[in-house]
Amino acid sequence: MRRPVPARTLAADLAGAEPGADVTLMGHVHRRRELATVAFLLLRDRSGVAQVVVRPDELPDGGLPPEETVVEVTGRVTPSVQAGGGVEVTSPRIRLLSERAATPPIELWRPVLSAGLPTVLDHAAVTWRHPRRRAAWEIAAASLRGFRRVLDDAGFTEVQTPKLVGTATESGANVFPVDYFGRTGYLAQSPQFYKQQLVGVFERVYEVAPVFRAEPHDTVRHLAEYVSLDVELGFVRDHRDVLELLRVVLVGMLDGVRTHAAGAVDRLGLQLPVVPAEIPVIHFAEALRRVGAPPDQPDLAPEHERALGTWAREELGSDLLAVEGYPLRKRPFYTHPWTGARFEGGPWSNSFDLLFRGVELVTGGQRLHRHPDYVSALRARGEAPAAFAAYLEAFAHGMPPHGGFAIGLERWVSRLVGASNVREVTLFPRDLHRLEP
Amino acid sequence: MRRPVPARTLAADLAGAEPGADVTLMGHVHRRRELATVAFLLLRDRSGVAQVVVRPDELPDGGLPPEETVVEVTGRVTPSVQAGGGVEVTSPRIRLLSERAATPPIELWRPVLSAGLPTVLDHAAVTWRHPRRRAAWEIAAASLRGFRRVLDDAGFTEVQTPKLVGTATESGANVFPVDYFGRTGYLAQSPQFYKQQLVGVFERVYEVAPVFRAEPHDTVRHLAEYVSLDVELGFVRDHRDVLELLRVVLVGMLDGVRTHAAGAVDRLGLQLPVVPAEIPVIHFAEALRRVGAPPDQPDLAPEHERALGTWAREELGSDLLAVEGYPLRKRPFYTHPWTGARFEGGPWSNSFDLLFRGVELVTGGQRLHRHPDYVSALRARGEAPAAFAAYLEAFAHGMPPHGGFAIGLERWVSRLVGASNVREVTLFPRDLHRLEP
Repeated sequence: MRRPVPARTLAADLAGAEPGADVTLMGHVHRRRELATVAFLLLRDRSGVAQVVVRPDELPDGGLPPEETVVEVTGRVTPSVQAGGGVEVTSPRIRLLSERAATPPIELWRPVLSAGLPTVLDHAAVTWRHPRRRAAWEIAAASLRGFRRVLDDAGFTEVQTPKLVGTATESGANVFPVDYFGRTGYLAQSPQFYKQQLVGVFERVYEVAPVFRAEPHDTVRHLAEYVSLDVELGFVRDHRDVLELLRVVLVGMLDGVRTHAAGAVDRLGLQLPVVPAEIPVIHFAEALRRVGAPPDQPDLAPEHERALGTWAREELGSDLLAVEGYPLRKRPFYTHPWTGARFEGGPWSNSFDLLFRGVELVTGGQRLHRHPDYVSALRARGEAPAAFAAYLEAFAHGMPPHGGFAIGLERWVSRLVGASNVREVTLFPRDLHRLEP
Repeated sequence: MRRPVPARTLAADLAGAEPGADVTLMGHVHRRRELATVAFLLLRDRSGVAQVVVRPDELPDGGLPPEETVVEVTGRVTPSVQAGGGVEVTSPRIRLLSERAATPPIELWRPVLSAGLPTVLDHAAVTWRHPRRRAAWEIAAASLRGFRRVLDDAGFTEVQTPKLVGTATESGANVFPVDYFGRTGYLAQSPQFYKQQLVGVFERVYEVAPVFRAEPHDTVRHLAEYVSLDVELGFVRDHRDVLELLRVVLVGMLDGVRTHAAGAVDRLGLQLPVVPAEIPVIHFAEALRRVGAPPDQPDLAPEHERALGTWAREELGSDLLAVEGYPLRKRPFYTHPWTGARFEGGPWSNSFDLLFRGVELVTGGQRLHRHPDYVSALRARGEAPAAFAAYLEAFAHGMPPHGGFAIGLERWVSRLVGASNVREVTLFPRDLHRLEP
């Protein structure tokens, strides 16, 4: 016969439990406080924190276990004005499920995690237990859930494409070489080529997967490995259809956060942004004019993005602003030229950046879909189409007009929670200096 | 003003459209047939195939476009006894959305894809368009959806852990080295260490992500990169709790397939397995006895697994059979020793393999959770605990009893569809010889 599993009560459900009932909690000792006549044990589980009142004769052998020890506590549900949720557990029987824990590298029970970033990252397995830190990843996971929900409902097919690739052709620089059975392979910088090819199969695809950038700069925004939320869809008219899908996806991600990470939003005191029914769009050429930049400037500088963000906030009442029509030569070779009625004949492209509070959040656009256009675009950049043969094969055999976008998960979360460094919201970040833990 | 988007009808929805109504279809030319007085165009979109009847005066310039060309067809819904679904489209206006497609490397319109595997894999972007081939991935995507649904509902948190790691310590062999900013990194063979550490944070975690094995053998079962569905949960009594979760997850994956890939199941004529309310379990020592293997044999040979599968099918009426208690020395160092009442004191472990129709499908079990046990287990294998410092830190600071499992997506799908080679169900497989397309 198996030992029966005790019906476990989560800390968050304690407030709804019947007073006087016996319950069993399981979790980490979040905090212990021993006073002269009574001791308090705060027990933390995945749902929250519960207060347990311990009389001297209820102490386990060796006294109250130290913080982070894992325990099972069976006791009585007792109304209490002091305890969070109005309920505490009394008359506990405390059983240790782990050995007594060593003192953590930071005090996890303090409301705010005050250690420096290197300490926080070096001891990630433990520091992620801090409720405010954990909240950031709860928001990430809920965002993924919302992302998939919207796309599943819209007839998209999830794909999983290879991260080991034979050529470093997409952007050339910043790739990681891999010793692949004695020859050189590379880590994929994005699933771009594969998601496009798969539009020819499934019409609408998405992928959530790591991408790799051998980013030689040590900044607060860049990681060597991050999670990319990639979307690509067929039968678009132009990049505006892609932008509208992106809008719906962002609404879904925020719905996911509201529904599945409400506790995390509360814990961090966040004000989630509102996605407007239509995202305001400004053409790149107009954007340059508005910020007073020279008309031949090929890209927007960060201070220009910030100025546009302020303008969108103050004049248009929107946290989000799309800039469309970036100069074609500054975009990847697969970018579709501009087809808008205004700005006709200029050096523009059917692409956009989405700015969130004045910082680039997402890049997207329409892609070329005709084989001859790919051959011309590659030749114009001095690239040999033969090096792209497997990719181009899809286009030789009929591809619909299509486009897509990619959202960096860590960047998205860091914007939502207001992190000053993307590493704060990455489970185990990788960068120029960091390959551990 | 933007060109309005035509209200698009999917092929699968044509049967429900009002006879006489005008509809617009978009998709690839699946098949064209020109007879003396009339032509037929089969249009394939993500939902299925629709028949379009084309009179000579309705032909586009240059005649009916060749197979795989992407078209928009507007025409009249007309009942038809010959057409699939009882409806065809007549009086069409055909507009080409791509250039006329080059002849595909295989004939996609033939009911069965008859090309050899190298051709199929070399031209993956095109061959995946074949409806029967595509069905395999539809089943994969639906399995993922079912997998996440079950776990999300059970309070699991999705995690995304790094694929670039600093040490090749988990199993030592078969790792891919990466040039990581001038030093050597490795591609993760599994998220094992990370998912365990994160049980200390979220209690219940899962991850769907690529894993990498520099597998030097060229077999029908092994890939250099595959998608691993990893699960880990805290507060288990032993591996039997893990097995029960696995059972529920498999039920959810099959529900996902039935709900979201019904068309694919039909197209392939599959009989999906039934997961019993309790998966039968046999101890490793009993399994050896039953198949007539020597009692000191350290593992089950493939023919033994097949014999056990036949026995489970015939005697127990189950496609699934769990073998528990594998010898501890054949399992990874983090495996928990046997705690069962039977077979006490033997060299066994709290681990299992799940056999599906006589082939190993999933490996799982309970892990060690006490820091001193890790130190002993590593020393017993001649490993220095210091090399595992970041991983072991989680255990020093309190970890619940926990366990988990990993399902290989491609292996799962190949069993369901009866593929003879796992490459058939992998979008772009990677192996000893293949790093393209």
